[in-house]
This record gives sequence, structure tokens and C-alpha cells, in this order.
Amino acid sequence: MKILITGGAGFLGQQLARALLDRGSLRLAGGEAKVDRIVCFDQGAGALQDARVEYRTGDIADPATVRGLIDRDTAVVVHLAAVVSGGAEADFDLGMRVNLDGTRLLLDACRTAGHQPRVLFTSSIAVFGGDLPAVVTDATTPTPQGSYGIQKLVGELLVADYSRKGYIDGRAVRVPTVVVRPGAPNAAASGFASGIIREPLAGVAAILPVEPATKMWVASPRAVVGMFLHALELSPQDWGWNRSINLPGLVVSMEEELAALREVGGDAAVALVRHQPDEKVLKLVRTWAANFDTARALAMGFRADPDFATIVRAYIEDNPTAIKLPGVRRSA
Amino acid sequence: MKILITGGAGFLGQQLARALLDRGSLRLAGGEAKVDRIVCFDQGAGALQDARVEYRTGDIADPATVRGLIDRDTAVVVHLAAVVSGGAEADFDLGMRVNLDGTRLLLDACRTAGHQPRVLFTSSIAVFGGDLPAVVTDATTPTPQGSYGIQKLVGELLVADYSRKGYIDGRAVRVPTVVVRPGAPNAAASGFASGIIREPLAGVAAILPVEPATKMWVASPRAVVGMFLHALELSPQDWGWNRSINLPGLVVSMEEELAALREVGGDAAVALVRHQPDEKVLKLVRTWAANFDTARALAMGFRADPDFATIVRAYIEDNPTAIKLPGVRRSA
Ligand SMILES: NC(=O)c1ccc[n+]([C@@H]2O[C@H](COP(=O)([O-])OP(=O)(O)OC[C@H]3O[C@@H](n4cnc5c(N)ncnc54)[C@H](O)[C@@H]3O)[C@@H](O)[C@H]2O)c1
Ligand SMILES: NC(=O)c1ccc[n+]([C@@H]2O[C@H](COP(=O)([O-])OP(=O)(O)OC[C@H]3O[C@@H](n4cnc5c(N)ncnc54)[C@H](O)[C@@H]3O)[C@@H](O)[C@H]2O)c1
Repeated sequence: MKILITGGAGFLGQQLARALLDRGSLRLAGGEAKVDRIVCFDQGAGALQDARVEYRTGDIADPATVRGLIDRDTAVVVHLAAVVSGGAEADFDLGMRVNLDGTRLLLDACRTAGHQPRVLFTSSIAVFGGDLPAVVTDATTPTPQGSYGIQKLVGELLVADYSRKGYIDGRAVRVPTVVVRPGAPNAAASGFASGIIREPLAGVAAILPVEPATKMWVASPRAVVGMFLHALELSPQDWGWNRSINLPGLVVSMEEELAALREVGGDAAVALVRHQPDEKVLKLVRTWAANFDTARALAMGFRADPDFATIVRAYIEDNPTAIKLPGVRRSA
Repeated sequence: MKILITGGAGFLGQQLARALLDRGSLRLAGGEAKVDRIVCFDQGAGALQDARVEYRTGDIADPATVRGLIDRDTAVVVHLAAVVSGGAEADFDLGMRVNLDGTRLLLDACRTAGHQPRVLFTSSIAVFGGDLPAVVTDATTPTPQGSYGIQKLVGELLVADYSRKGYIDGRAVRVPTVVVRPGAPNAAASGFASGIIREPLAGVAAILPVEPATKMWVASPRAVVGMFLHALELSPQDWGWNRSINLPGLVVSMEEELAALREVGGDAAVALVRHQPDEKVLKLVRTWAANFDTARALAMGFRADPDFATIVRAYIEDNPTAIKLPGVRRSA
């Protein structure tokens, strides 16, 4: 079986490819399907090298390119390629082109292939915004307050309709903010939630642009990749007509993040974080949902991280070369 | 002031143009704005003739055409051009092209014009479907079960985001099934709700393809056009960030429709309606929402018809030449 990962050279794309290689197979309709080949489509190649991984570069919004991405062997498509929140807000046309046109082209390519590929669409909790209840439930109406959230929600609707029509077997997961994101900061407005852990552990200063009491809904890369695999392995019957779901996560305040940082890195680590409010970030963050009741996802078997300390420890374990602060505790 | 009506040669487009001419002005931000010119854009011309009405023909999904539709004088745009429910379900690509691409092109033309035109988007209660509560409220999540509903909901989301970005001053109304629709039946799956009144009054047989107890959420053309004007005259502050609204209407069962028909046309009229269940129509109708609590719209001043008998009498008054059954009572 062939698996296509768009955005396959990105953060989650690389982690997912690694996890698929480690697993070696996926439980699909016809039983265990062997992972013979992973096509990672992106603007450039990724670091992960393996005989089963093939990099293809191009633009997800180019019709001819996207038509060539899927053939009869492509049983599974994971659509990660996207312009993230800050980027889509700053460049409206780019966001529409990549997030909306790109998604539609990919779904059309799946439809043209004709064998109803299983498609995982990675939406975001940014579909929620505006006047939200204290706890967002499966019944809360998504009312995005940013172009990124709008484009993700439109993607979900298309996935639902293409699935209903029998063009694809689609499923869309609304991903919490993934923390701790390794590497350089990206254009996501939520980046500070990773930055205040990642930078101090690297011995570098970080800025907290929001109140320490600010809460966020987060999940670790490990948990998210695990939930991607679970979303793919659930049957169409498990999903039913409702193909969108809020993924489980953890509520964490920035204070709690700093406490977890102190646990592994001591006062020296926390001293590297400076609180410097940024009105632009604050304005956006205030419209975000921080607490969820994900009853449906839990009933369907999705599982998040047990606590934030586990997330930090997993980051240290998975990114040994990024840890440069002296004296960081590497295990509990 | 210039007003653009897309789908302006259609049923509601013609009624709206007539109402705008009769009114002569609209209460906009700068006070009463005189209706100097109405541009009715459609695939063909309409019957209404007036010195202030200009017909332009073309395809709403053609970029060059749509770019030419809006200039600095176009203060108001009402977007009615659409492939209706049955049509969008039967021809997926046509629905996507007209309902999705067409809407986006129009919004982009408004954005390019640069003066933030006031845009009314006509959505539909077909955005609701699936496992619905007995009464749909302002908090009910739209989960469309047809391509038409999906495309309308995507249109709403784009209107919301273009408004938030300041590209347009948009508002979207979810229109109940408009009854009684005059003239020939169209491709809307809900057509029978008009047909079982219209055809008998014309002395023609009609088919009721659903159970007589089937309920629908309806409004008269007069009420709907009145609510379009109201939606346009409300200020951006009245709307706030939530630019979509469920319009008030009436719950009516097909039995109640037949009772109203008997009142004006007697047993002879009702005898022309034959109950002949159609599984395809039944399947669709079962997913529709029939009862709404439209608290927000009522608070914003939207008003529907008082009862179904009033709707039938208005139809008879407005369409005298379509009434051919002998002995029809023309007033209460
Ligand atoms: N990381 C999170 O916190 C988070 C939260 C919610 C949702 N998501 C979603 O998960 C997906 C993956 O996120 P990530 O964190 O790995 O982001 P990422 O930015 O690391 O990866 C996205 C990839 O898409 C690629 N891409 C962008 N434009 C492209 C184009 N025009 N053509 C081809 N490729 C293009 C980028 O090169 C990048 O490698 C995204 O869709 C994102 O919206 C992520
Ligand atoms: N009538 C209802 O019960 C009802 C209910 C809910 C929503 N609506 C919406 O209200 C609007 C008007 O409805 P209506 O009942 O007047 O329908 P209608 O079919 O009479 O009018 C729609 C018009 O759009 C035009 N059109 C279609 N494709 C076009 C294209 N490619 N380019 C240019 N014009 C095109 C048609 O020629 C037609 O005149 C529609 O958007 C409809 O979805 C109607």
C-alpha cells in the first residue's frame, strides 16, 4: 500500500512518516495493510531518509501537480500541507490558495482516482472562536474568527460532502495546539506555548506575550500522531455521517507550563522567560477555546497525554540535541 | 445608488427588484439612499421592465464577467444566483462551480472594488440536517446533508471572513422554503410544498410525494423579500461578528396546507392532489429541519407571515392570472 502525506516534510508530516515506518502496517478495511511506500509531498524534502520514503516537491495549489499525486495504489491520504494561522491571517490570498484551493484540488484528485481513498484532513481547534462557552463540547457550533479557521472549516465541509457522495472515505480531526514543537518558531500565533519550554531548554531566552494565567488546549506530537493513526484505522461505520471531531487534549495554563519547566530545568530555565504582553497576540488568543469536553472522541478511542510534565519529558527524550541548558533532568 | 442583484431574473430576484422600485430608497449608513439603478445579472432577462432596471446576462462562475459587475456606485449587492437543492445534488460539479466558485468570485469583485459594499447572501435552512433536535435554535450547529447545503454554508463562512477582514459588509440569511412559488416547478426538492397549492388553483393535478403529516418551515415570497430589505437596512453593529441568521417562518404540515387549500378552493381543489410517496424525496425531506426557534432574528426585527391562510391569499392576490379553478375565493 502507498500512503500520501501532503506537507510531508513538515513537523507533523515527518513525525507521522516515522511512526508509519515503525509500525509497518495499518489496519484498514481489508485487514492489516503493509506500508510499502510513503510519498511525502511538500515544497522541499525532509530530513527523514528511508528506502520506503519518497519525497516529491511542488505546490499543493497547482492543479497539474496535484492530479499526479494519487494513483490506484494510494490507499491512504493524509493532508497536512497548509499555511498556518499567523500566515493565513497575514496573507489572505495565500491562505485561500493553499488551504482552500489546495484542499479542494486534492479531494478532486482522490475523486478522479475512483477507488474512494481514505483521507485524513487535519483541521484545528481554531475553528472555534467568538462568544464561546466555558467548555466547548461536540455540540458547540464552530464560528472561526480568523481566515485560517474559516479555511479549515471549509475543508471539513468538503471532506464531509465528498465522503457522503462516496468520492472519498474522509475523516477530519480538529487538532489541539501541538506542544512542544521542536526547531525554529513558525508563523502560528500559538507558537509561544512551545517557545517558553523549547527556548529555555536550549539555553535561549523566550518571550511570553500573554498573561501567565492564559489557558490553552494542547497535545504532544506523540499523542497527535497516535490519534492520526487511530483516525485512519477507524471504520467508516465508526465515523458515521459526522466526519469531524474535536481531539482530546489537556488544558494547561502558561503558569503550569512554567512550573513543568522548573521541574526539569530549575529556576535557571524559568529565568530565561520574560513576560512581555503583545496586544496583537492577546487579541487573537482571547478568541480561542481553551477547554473541551471531547466525549465523542473518547468514546471512539482517541487518547491524549496524561499530564503536561509527560509532554515535556517526551520532548526532552525525542530531541536530545536540542537540550543545551546545563543540569536538565532527562527522566522522572 | 446602484444595486446589483445576481440571479436577478429569477423568482426572488424579480420580486426583490419590484419591491426596491416600489420603495424607491434604502436606509443605509449615510441615511436614505435613492434606488437609481438596479442591475439584474442572470443567465437571461426577466419580465419586469422599468427605466431603472438593467439586465445583464452571463455566468456567475466566469471570472472576467463577475469582475465587471461591480463599480464604485454599487453600494448594495444581493447574491441570489444559485443552482438549487435538487440541481446541486444531481450535478455536483455544476453546484460547486455556481454556488461555491461563483460566490467567491463575487466576493472578490466586491473586495477589489474597495468601498466595502453591503452584501446580502441568501443561504438556506438546508444547512441543517442529520441528527437534529426537535426545534432548531440559533445555537444548533449546521451539518448539511446535501451538496447544496454544504455550498451555502461555505458561502456563509466566506461572507463572515470577508466581513471580518473589512472587504465587504456582509450578512447571510437562511431562508425558509418559499411557498407559494409561482410559475413552473423548479429543481428544488421541496417544490411539492408549493405545487400542492399552485397546481390545484390552476385547475391542474398535483402530487404529494411525502406523508400528509410531514412538516416544513416556510415563508411567503412577500415576507422573504421584506426580510431581505430588513437584513440590508440593519447596521453592521446590529449584526455584530455573527453574520449568519435563521430567518423566522411558519411550521406547516402538508395536511394544514391542504386545509388552507380547501378553504379557498373547496373540495374540488383538494381532489386534484394525489398522495404518491416518492422514496427519493422522502429520504431527503426526512433530513430537513421543520421547526425553528428564531429568537435572534425576532430580536433583530425580522418578521414572518402570521399564518398559512395569509400566505395562500397573498399568492392568489399576487398571481391573478394563475388562478383558473372555478369558484376560488379571492379574499377572506
Ligand atoms: N502543529 C499544530 O499545533 C497544529 C494544530 C492544529 C492543526 N495543525 C495542522 O496540522 C498540519 C501540519 O502542521 P505542522 O505543525 O506540521 O505544520 P508545518 O508548517 O510544519 O507543516 C506544513 C507543511 O506544509 C507545507 N506547505 C505549505 N504550503 C504548501 C504548498 N503550497 N504546497 C506544498 N506544501 C506546502 C510546508 O512546507 C510545511 O512543510 C497543518 O495542516 C496544520 O494546519 C497543526
Ligand atoms: N425559493 C426558496 O425556497 C429558497 C429557499 C432558500 C434559499 N433560496 C435561495 O434564494 C436564491 C434565489 O432563489 P429563487 O427561488 O429565486 O431561485 P431561482 O432559481 O428562481 O433563481 C436563481 C437564479 O439564478 C440564476 N443562475 C443560476 N445559475 C447561474 C449562473 N451560472 N450564472 C448566472 N445566474 C445563474 C438562475 O438563472 C435563476 O434565475 C437562491 O440563492 C436560493 O438558493 C431560495
